[in-house]
Amino acid sequence: MNKLWNIAIVGAAGTVGAELVSILEERDFPVGTLQLFASAGSVDETLGFRGEDLDVLELSEDCFAGIDLVFFTSDIEDSRSLCPSAVAAGAVCIDCSGTWRMDPEVPLVVPEVNPGDIAQYRNRGIIANPGSSTVQLVLPLKALDDFSPVQRVVVSTYQAVSDSGAGAIEELRKQVGELLNGRPIESHTYPHQIGFNCLPHIDVFLDDGYTREETNLVDETRKILGNSEMKITATAVRVPVFYGNGESINVETAAKITPEKARELFASFPGLKVVDEPGGNLYPLPVETAGTDLVSVGRIRQDLSIGSGLNLWTAADNVRKGTATNAVQIAELLIAQYL
Amino acid sequence: MNKLWNIAIVGAAGTVGAELVSILEERDFPVGTLQLFASAGSVDETLGFRGEDLDVLELSEDCFAGIDLVFFTSDIEDSRSLCPSAVAAGAVCIDCSGTWRMDPEVPLVVPEVNPGDIAQYRNRGIIANPGSSTVQLVLPLKALDDFSPVQRVVVSTYQAVSDSGAGAIEELRKQVGELLNGRPIESHTYPHQIGFNCLPHIDVFLDDGYTREETNLVDETRKILGNSEMKITATAVRVPVFYGNGESINVETAAKITPEKARELFASFPGLKVVDEPGGNLYPLPVETAGTDLVSVGRIRQDLSIGSGLNLWTAADNVRKGTATNAVQIAELLIAQYL
Repeated sequence: MNKLWNIAIVGAAGTVGAELVSILEERDFPVGTLQLFASAGSVDETLGFRGEDLDVLELSEDCFAGIDLVFFTSDIEDSRSLCPSAVAAGAVCIDCSGTWRMDPEVPLVVPEVNPGDIAQYRNRGIIANPGSSTVQLVLPLKALDDFSPVQRVVVSTYQAVSDSGAGAIEELRKQVGELLNGRPIESHTYPHQIGFNCLPHIDVFLDDGYTREETNLVDETRKILGNSEMKITATAVRVPVFYGNGESINVETAAKITPEKARELFASFPGLKVVDEPGGNLYPLPVETAGTDLVSVGRIRQDLSIGSGLNLWTAADNVRKGTATNAVQIAELLIAQYL
Repeated sequence: MNKLWNIAIVGAAGTVGAELVSILEERDFPVGTLQLFASAGSVDETLGFRGEDLDVLELSEDCFAGIDLVFFTSDIEDSRSLCPSAVAAGAVCIDCSGTWRMDPEVPLVVPEVNPGDIAQYRNRGIIANPGSSTVQLVLPLKALDDFSPVQRVVVSTYQAVSDSGAGAIEELRKQVGELLNGRPIESHTYPHQIGFNCLPHIDVFLDDGYTREETNLVDETRKILGNSEMKITATAVRVPVFYGNGESINVETAAKITPEKARELFASFPGLKVVDEPGGNLYPLPVETAGTDLVSVGRIRQDLSIGSGLNLWTAADNVRKGTATNAVQIAELLIAQYL
């Protein structure tokens, strides 16, 4: 009989926490016990798992006893002290919070792209899950890079509000209703109206004028692709979409890759789905990726402005493949090959 | 006393037609008579102008008699036969329909960028108004190009539904209402759901995989900037916004331009407004440009991936500065300098 694993999810009351519970069930993860934790303010909830209602319990110092694997969700802003406590109690942490992504001792993993990096979990007992916009970018880049090295990337994102959690989903829903009825709106999660608007502002601004989201996208992509000098620049924009991120990607490669060849490379790369039949109005759509675990890639065109470039448009479910599914895939690899 | 001009608007029942009437009044254009025309199906409308209700009349062969200036709106799909009829009757045509933009005999004009090209109206009696995404792009590019030649541009657009006319505005409004209430939606203007979604599809697809919108953006930008070899590539995306287009622009120039210098160049360029104080959450927002006549430019950052590049984010009212205001500005220049 296969070993079963005792799992904890920290930040279980949020959007990603609920999705992690669903995905563990869907993928038939060998769960022994599943314990759900949240900070004191968010514990009056239950989540269904394999026909049982599990209570979300309050986080405490000793809640990691007997746990093998802990998922920290992106709703936990700082896992700086929590992860080491869990590791000290004997668990391995898969952290979606952003805290550990650029720590040189912590591997940052997209299983289809750099599975071997998982071995570095031994350094600190922690594996970091990238941001959703990074996961969506590195899959097509890796498929091309394996064929001809990527020289430069210019990416513009179209990011859904679910990246910002349940409060943002409610804010968009409410604003749109008020605006359609000509009533005044309130903004709490975002500094400006998101309903029927685009905000070129995700996470905080840094000194060089980039947002942390844009800088993370650049730094995380370089780390995952193992190329610290990769030329890449990003503009990250929030759009009034509930689920599903879009990315407009311009990529220059060392050798010319035709759209036909690129389609072939993407079609044979795990985690990618080619949706590229303009004649039939088929191209990646954020709403159609909701609930799926693949990154859709389409609008594959030769960039006519340079000798060896391509334009791509991708879409993915930011909460699933962008975050929760990727984290569970990391756990699957970890238990299969390392624990 | 200044001369007054007899004006006609063809396609007056549409979004741009109504905006043209408002802008002629706002800018105190020296109008003698104003006549409004539409195709037979759309004539049961009136539009207010200087306190009078003007009927929208049915287009006919002889409706251009005595007219000095005709605006053809973007709601007229093909002005191929209409413009020559108006010119034969003695009028000059300002065409927003897209029919004449790339005709080498017809000037394509953004008054702040290439005002001198208006003189070529004499060739055919027609001046073409660019597409809204082009107007928004060429203003900041020209400001930079005057200082150091633009070498390459990668642009991704975030375009409002009002670009597609009144039917599209109603489609977004209706879909959003149905979706919030969990009811099924219908799509007519667009091939897929636009509510809470992004469509990487504007206008028809061409053989090379680009849309006509993307190709127009490239070709029109080259023509207006007078550089037929300019390296520029585009991805055009429809977003669920009513009014106001956004553009994420990556631009490489011959010499390095710092963000400070770029801000200075933009601030002194007519038609542009610098909105770039990230610390105060100030950056261009599509909804804030609604009803304005300037292109807002912000998020001005050095592109760290190349030696001399910048990233910009712009927003503009696609129906006003993107279309109707630009057309009236062309008319103002024409009567001031040429007629």
